[in-house]
Amino acid sequence: MLDPQGKVIQQILQNMGMNTLKELRQGKYFEIEINEKDENKAKNKVDEMCKKLLANLIIEDFKVNKL
Amino acid sequence: MLDPQGKVIQQILQNMGMNTLKELRQGKYFEIEINEKDENKAKNKVDEMCKKLLANLIIEDFKVNKL
Repeated sequence: MLDPQGKVIQQILQNMGMNTLKELRQGKYFEIEINEKDENKAKNKVDEMCKKLLANLIIEDFKVNKL
Repeated sequence: MLDPQGKVIQQILQNMGMNTLKELRQGKYFEIEINEKDENKAKNKVDEMCKKLLANLIIEDFKVNKL
């Protein structure tokens, strides 16, 4: 995925003298608590939230992890 | 930390019928690759990046994890 803002931040840090910096990528995260005992159902619900609202699938990718 | 945008997103999802949603928090993350073999030095460098540029310490908190 393209990450123009991450590239700008990387350039600024390198210009500030951080010469060990190799790569920087930026993104968003959501911590989501669900009232659901069935782990599969909870995962499906979060997938649905991502597809319907949280992620812009045209320009973004997403993954779901259990905490 | 206050998270007004997270609260708005939570409300929208609940209004969309996601009634098992209990809590949603939103944040930013940065994946940073450093050319540094010494893990402590790498951690200190990333802390410095957070304090000098990446985090707005007035309204944000940050934590650093090794990937």
